[in-house]
Amino acid sequence: MKLTRVGEVSNSFLDEIPDDYKERLSEIHIHEKYTDSLLGIEDHSHIVVLCWFHKGDRSIQRVHPMMDDNNPLVGVFGTRSPVRPNPLSITVCELVERKGNVLVVKGLDAYNGTPVIDIKSYTTKYVVDSPVFPDWIPDRWRDKNDR
Amino acid sequence: MKLTRVGEVSNSFLDEIPDDYKERLSEIHIHEKYTDSLLGIEDHSHIVVLCWFHKGDRSIQRVHPMMDDNNPLVGVFGTRSPVRPNPLSITVCELVERKGNVLVVKGLDAYNGTPVIDIKSYTTKYVVDSPVFPDWIPDRWRDKNDR
Repeated sequence: MKLTRVGEVSNSFLDEIPDDYKERLSEIHIHEKYTDSLLGIEDHSHIVVLCWFHKGDRSIQRVHPMMDDNNPLVGVFGTRSPVRPNPLSITVCELVERKGNVLVVKGLDAYNGTPVIDIKSYTTKYVVDSPVFPDWIPDRWRDKNDR
Repeated sequence: MKLTRVGEVSNSFLDEIPDDYKERLSEIHIHEKYTDSLLGIEDHSHIVVLCWFHKGDRSIQRVHPMMDDNNPLVGVFGTRSPVRPNPLSITVCELVERKGNVLVVKGLDAYNGTPVIDIKSYTTKYVVDSPVFPDWIPDRWRDKNDR
Protein backbone atom coordinates (compact mmCIF):
# COMPACT_ATOMS: atom_id res chain seq x y z
CA MET A 1 0.00 0.00 0.00
CA LYS A 2 2.25 2.69 -1.32
CA LEU A 3 1.00 6.26 -1.60
CA THR A 4 1.71 8.47 -4.59
CA ARG A 5 2.17 12.19 -4.07
CA VAL A 6 -0.33 14.02 -6.29
CA GLY A 7 0.72 17.53 -5.26
CA GLU A 8 1.94 19.64 -2.38
CA VAL A 9 0.85 22.46 -0.11
CA SER A 10 2.18 25.98 -0.61
CA ASN A 11 1.53 28.50 2.16
CA SER A 12 3.28 30.60 4.80
CA PHE A 13 2.96 28.01 7.59
CA LEU A 14 6.62 27.12 8.04
CA ASP A 15 7.02 26.09 11.69
CA GLU A 16 3.53 26.25 13.13
CA ILE A 17 -0.09 26.32 12.09
CA PRO A 18 -1.52 29.76 12.97
CA ASP A 19 -4.50 29.94 15.33
CA ASP A 20 -6.57 31.58 12.61
CA TYR A 21 -5.72 28.99 9.95
CA LYS A 22 -9.41 28.60 9.14
CA GLU A 23 -9.36 32.09 7.65
CA ARG A 24 -5.99 31.74 5.91
CA LEU A 25 -5.35 30.86 2.29
CA SER A 26 -3.13 28.05 1.04
CA GLU A 27 -2.39 26.78 -2.41
CA ILE A 28 -2.44 23.16 -3.46
CA HIS A 29 -0.18 22.53 -6.44
CA ILE A 30 -1.37 19.44 -8.27
CA HIS A 31 1.19 17.72 -10.49
CA GLU A 32 0.60 17.90 -14.25
CA LYS A 33 0.19 14.14 -14.36
CA TYR A 34 -3.05 14.48 -12.38
CA THR A 35 -4.66 17.34 -14.30
CA ASP A 36 -7.46 15.10 -15.55
CA SER A 37 -8.42 14.29 -11.95
CA LEU A 38 -9.30 17.98 -11.44
CA LEU A 39 -11.90 18.22 -14.23
CA GLY A 40 -14.91 20.11 -12.90
CA ILE A 41 -13.63 20.47 -9.34
CA GLU A 42 -14.31 24.22 -9.48
CA ASP A 43 -18.04 23.44 -9.25
CA HIS A 44 -17.58 22.54 -5.58
CA SER A 45 -17.48 25.25 -2.92
CA HIS A 46 -15.74 22.87 -0.50
CA ILE A 47 -13.38 19.95 -0.86
CA VAL A 48 -11.85 17.32 1.43
CA VAL A 49 -8.05 17.38 1.34
CA LEU A 50 -5.92 14.42 2.45
CA CYS A 51 -2.28 15.10 3.26
CA TRP A 52 0.64 13.02 4.46
CA PHE A 53 2.01 14.55 7.65
CA HIS A 54 5.60 13.61 6.95
CA LYS A 55 6.72 15.11 10.26
CA GLY A 56 4.33 12.93 12.28
CA ASP A 57 5.79 10.33 14.68
CA ARG A 58 4.28 6.97 13.66
CA SER A 59 5.25 5.17 16.87
CA ILE A 60 3.15 7.22 19.30
CA GLN A 61 -0.26 5.66 20.05
CA ARG A 62 -1.54 7.66 23.01
CA VAL A 63 -1.63 11.44 23.44
CA HIS A 64 -3.01 14.18 25.64
CA PRO A 65 -5.27 15.78 22.99
CA MET A 66 -4.50 19.30 21.83
CA MET A 67 -1.08 19.02 23.48
CA ASP A 68 -2.73 19.85 26.81
CA ASP A 69 -1.58 17.72 29.74
CA ASN A 70 -4.84 18.52 31.50
CA ASN A 71 -6.62 16.40 28.92
CA PRO A 72 -6.71 12.65 29.59
CA LEU A 73 -4.38 10.27 27.80
CA VAL A 74 -6.35 8.79 24.89
CA GLY A 75 -5.61 6.65 21.87
CA VAL A 76 -4.77 8.50 18.67
CA PHE A 77 -7.66 6.79 16.84
CA GLY A 78 -10.01 8.92 18.97
CA THR A 79 -8.23 12.14 18.01
CA ARG A 80 -7.08 14.17 15.04
CA SER A 81 -3.50 14.16 16.32
CA PRO A 82 -0.86 14.33 13.58
CA VAL A 83 1.01 11.49 15.29
CA ARG A 84 -0.52 8.11 14.43
CA PRO A 85 0.44 4.85 12.72
CA ASN A 86 -0.41 6.32 9.29
CA PRO A 87 0.01 10.10 9.53
CA LEU A 88 -2.76 11.08 7.13
CA SER A 89 -4.71 14.29 7.68
CA ILE A 90 -8.22 15.16 6.55
CA THR A 91 -9.23 18.82 6.22
CA VAL A 92 -12.46 20.19 4.84
CA CYS A 93 -11.55 23.41 3.00
CA GLU A 94 -13.31 26.10 1.06
CA LEU A 95 -12.22 25.99 -2.59
CA VAL A 96 -11.77 29.69 -3.26
CA GLU A 97 -10.40 29.48 -6.79
CA ARG A 98 -8.90 27.12 -9.31
CA LYS A 99 -6.04 28.50 -11.38
CA GLY A 100 -5.09 25.64 -13.69
CA ASN A 101 -3.41 23.03 -11.52
CA VAL A 102 -3.32 25.33 -8.50
CA LEU A 103 -6.22 25.18 -6.04
CA VAL A 104 -6.53 28.19 -3.74
CA VAL A 105 -8.18 26.94 -0.55
CA LYS A 106 -9.18 28.49 2.77
CA GLY A 107 -8.74 26.64 6.04
CA LEU A 108 -6.09 24.06 5.22
CA ASP A 109 -4.44 22.68 8.37
CA ALA A 110 -1.03 21.73 6.93
CA TYR A 111 2.49 23.09 6.69
CA ASN A 112 4.12 24.44 3.57
CA GLY A 113 5.53 21.59 1.52
CA THR A 114 3.24 18.90 2.91
CA PRO A 115 2.55 16.13 0.36
CA VAL A 116 -1.04 16.04 -0.88
CA ILE A 117 -2.38 12.50 -1.34
CA ASP A 118 -5.99 12.88 -2.36
CA ILE A 119 -8.88 15.29 -2.80
CA LYS A 120 -12.55 14.34 -2.54
CA SER A 121 -15.87 16.09 -2.96
CA TYR A 122 -17.43 17.47 0.20
CA THR A 123 -21.04 16.43 0.69
CA THR A 124 -23.41 16.10 3.63
CA LYS A 125 -22.31 12.46 3.92
CA TYR A 126 -19.82 13.91 6.39
CA VAL A 127 -22.52 15.43 8.60
CA VAL A 128 -23.84 13.68 11.73
CA ASP A 129 -27.01 14.95 13.36
CA SER A 130 -26.47 14.44 17.09
CA PRO A 131 -22.92 13.34 17.76
CA VAL A 132 -21.74 12.52 21.28
CA PHE A 133 -18.19 13.50 22.21
CA PRO A 134 -15.66 12.73 24.95
CA ASP A 135 -15.41 15.42 27.63
CA TRP A 136 -12.11 16.75 26.30
CA ILE A 137 -13.51 17.77 22.90
CA PRO A 138 -13.65 21.59 22.99
CA ASP A 139 -16.93 23.42 22.63
CA ARG A 140 -15.96 24.89 19.28
CA TRP A 141 -15.79 21.39 17.79
CA ARG A 142 -19.15 20.36 19.24
CA ASP A 143 -21.57 22.96 18.00
CA LYS A 144 -21.58 23.55 14.27
CA ASN A 145 -23.13 26.95 14.86
CA ASP A 146 -20.24 28.04 17.04
CA ARG A 147 -17.15 27.01 15.08
CA MET B 1 4.96 7.03 1.98
CA LYS B 2 4.10 3.48 2.83
CA LEU B 3 0.86 2.67 4.60
CA THR B 4 0.59 0.18 7.43
CA ARG B 5 -2.57 -1.90 7.80
CA VAL B 6 -3.95 -1.34 11.31
CA GLY B 7 -6.93 -3.67 10.90
CA GLU B 8 -9.54 -4.92 8.48
CA VAL B 9 -13.26 -4.81 7.80
CA SER B 10 -15.47 -7.78 8.60
CA ASN B 11 -19.00 -7.73 7.20
CA SER B 12 -21.28 -9.49 4.75
CA PHE B 13 -20.52 -7.20 1.80
CA LEU B 14 -18.71 -9.66 -0.45
CA ASP B 15 -19.34 -8.48 -4.01
CA GLU B 16 -21.33 -5.29 -3.66
CA ILE B 17 -22.19 -2.62 -1.14
CA PRO B 18 -25.91 -2.90 -0.32
CA ASP B 19 -28.14 0.11 -0.95
CA ASP B 20 -29.01 0.27 2.74
CA TYR B 21 -25.39 0.12 3.91
CA LYS B 22 -26.00 3.14 6.14
CA GLU B 23 -28.20 0.96 8.34
CA ARG B 24 -25.97 -2.11 8.24
CA LEU B 25 -23.40 -3.18 10.80
CA SER B 26 -19.77 -3.96 10.11
CA GLU B 27 -16.91 -4.89 12.38
CA ILE B 28 -13.48 -3.34 12.31
CA HIS B 29 -10.86 -5.72 13.68
CA ILE B 30 -7.90 -3.70 14.93
CA HIS B 31 -4.61 -5.57 15.23
CA GLU B 32 -3.30 -6.19 18.75
CA LYS B 33 -0.27 -4.04 18.00
CA TYR B 34 -2.56 -0.98 17.84
CA THR B 35 -4.65 -1.60 20.96
CA ASP B 36 -3.20 1.49 22.66
CA SER B 37 -4.47 3.66 19.80
CA LEU B 38 -8.05 2.70 20.76
CA LEU B 39 -7.90 3.96 24.36
CA GLY B 40 -11.11 5.89 25.08
CA ILE B 41 -12.54 5.62 21.57
CA GLU B 42 -15.81 4.29 23.02
CA ASP B 43 -16.57 7.82 24.27
CA HIS B 44 -17.30 8.87 20.68
CA SER B 45 -20.68 8.18 19.11
CA HIS B 46 -19.19 8.59 15.62
CA ILE B 47 -15.79 7.98 14.07
CA VAL B 48 -14.11 8.65 10.74
CA VAL B 49 -12.80 5.45 9.13
CA LEU B 50 -10.09 5.45 6.44
CA CYS B 51 -9.75 2.35 4.32
CA TRP B 52 -7.55 1.28 1.43
CA PHE B 53 -9.76 0.26 -1.48
CA HIS B 54 -7.44 -2.43 -2.72
CA LYS B 55 -9.74 -3.20 -5.65
CA GLY B 56 -9.67 0.40 -6.91
CA ASP B 57 -8.08 1.13 -10.30
CA ARG B 58 -5.39 3.75 -9.66
CA SER B 59 -4.98 4.72 -13.33
CA ILE B 60 -8.50 6.11 -13.92
CA GLN B 61 -8.71 9.89 -13.49
CA ARG B 62 -12.14 10.76 -14.89
CA VAL B 63 -15.47 9.09 -14.19
CA HIS B 64 -19.18 9.47 -14.69
CA PRO B 65 -20.12 9.83 -11.00
CA MET B 66 -22.23 7.15 -9.38
CA MET B 67 -21.55 4.91 -12.38
CA ASP B 68 -24.30 6.76 -14.26
CA ASP B 69 -23.44 7.65 -17.86
CA ASN B 70 -26.02 10.43 -17.69
CA ASN B 71 -23.73 12.26 -15.28
CA PRO B 72 -20.98 14.37 -16.84
CA LEU B 73 -17.40 13.13 -17.01
CA VAL B 74 -15.58 14.70 -14.06
CA GLY B 75 -12.20 14.32 -12.39
CA VAL B 76 -12.02 11.84 -9.53
CA PHE B 77 -10.79 14.58 -7.15
CA GLY B 78 -14.31 16.05 -7.34
CA THR B 79 -15.93 12.73 -6.44
CA ARG B 80 -15.90 9.95 -3.86
CA SER B 81 -15.21 7.35 -6.54
CA PRO B 82 -13.21 4.34 -5.33
CA VAL B 83 -10.97 4.67 -8.40
CA ARG B 84 -8.34 7.38 -7.89
CA PRO B 85 -4.54 7.72 -7.74
CA ASN B 86 -4.53 6.76 -4.05
CA PRO B 87 -7.61 4.61 -3.41
CA LEU B 88 -8.33 5.77 0.14
CA SER B 89 -11.89 5.95 1.41
CA ILE B 90 -13.32 8.10 4.17
CA THR B 91 -16.55 7.04 5.87
CA VAL B 92 -18.20 8.66 8.88
CA CYS B 93 -19.73 5.82 10.92
CA GLU B 94 -21.69 5.40 14.08
CA LEU B 95 -19.61 3.57 16.69
CA VAL B 96 -22.20 1.18 18.07
CA GLU B 97 -19.98 -0.81 20.42
CA ARG B 98 -16.39 -1.56 21.25
CA LYS B 99 -15.61 -5.17 22.13
CA GLY B 100 -11.92 -5.17 22.90
CA ASN B 101 -10.14 -4.69 19.59
CA VAL B 102 -13.35 -5.05 17.59
CA LEU B 103 -15.31 -1.93 16.75
CA VAL B 104 -18.93 -2.52 15.73
CA VAL B 105 -19.90 0.31 13.40
CA LYS B 106 -22.99 1.27 11.45
CA GLY B 107 -22.76 2.73 7.94
CA LEU B 108 -19.33 1.60 6.76
CA ASP B 109 -19.03 1.78 2.98
CA ALA B 110 -16.42 -0.97 2.43
CA TYR B 111 -16.22 -4.62 1.42
CA ASN B 112 -15.40 -7.48 3.75
CA GLY B 113 -11.63 -7.80 4.10
CA THR B 114 -10.82 -4.18 3.20
CA PRO B 115 -7.65 -2.95 4.94
CA VAL B 116 -8.27 -0.27 7.56
CA ILE B 117 -5.61 2.44 7.58
CA ASP B 118 -6.71 4.97 10.16
CA ILE B 119 -9.53 6.04 12.47
CA LYS B 120 -10.13 9.61 13.64
CA SER B 121 -12.53 11.37 15.94
CA TYR B 122 -15.61 12.84 14.31
CA THR B 123 -16.22 16.48 15.21
CA THR B 124 -18.07 19.40 13.66
CA LYS B 125 -14.81 20.36 11.95
CA TYR B 126 -16.24 18.26 9.11
CA VAL B 127 -19.41 20.33 8.83
CA VAL B 128 -19.82 23.14 6.28
CA ASP B 129 -22.70 25.58 6.65
CA SER B 130 -23.74 26.40 3.10
CA PRO B 131 -21.90 24.19 0.65
CA VAL B 132 -22.38 24.58 -3.10
CA PHE B 133 -22.37 21.41 -5.21
CA PRO B 134 -22.08 20.46 -8.90
CA ASP B 135 -25.41 19.65 -10.55
CA TRP B 136 -24.77 15.90 -10.52
CA ILE B 137 -24.59 15.63 -6.72
CA PRO B 138 -27.83 13.87 -5.69
CA ASP B 139 -30.31 15.59 -3.42
CA ARG B 140 -29.70 13.15 -0.60
CA TRP B 141 -26.09 14.35 -0.36
CA ARG B 142 -27.04 18.03 -0.37
CA ASP B 143 -29.47 18.39 2.48
CA LYS B 144 -28.32 17.10 5.82
CA ASN B 145 -31.94 16.82 6.93
CA ASP B 146 -32.76 14.49 4.06
CA ARG B 147 -29.99 11.94 4.05
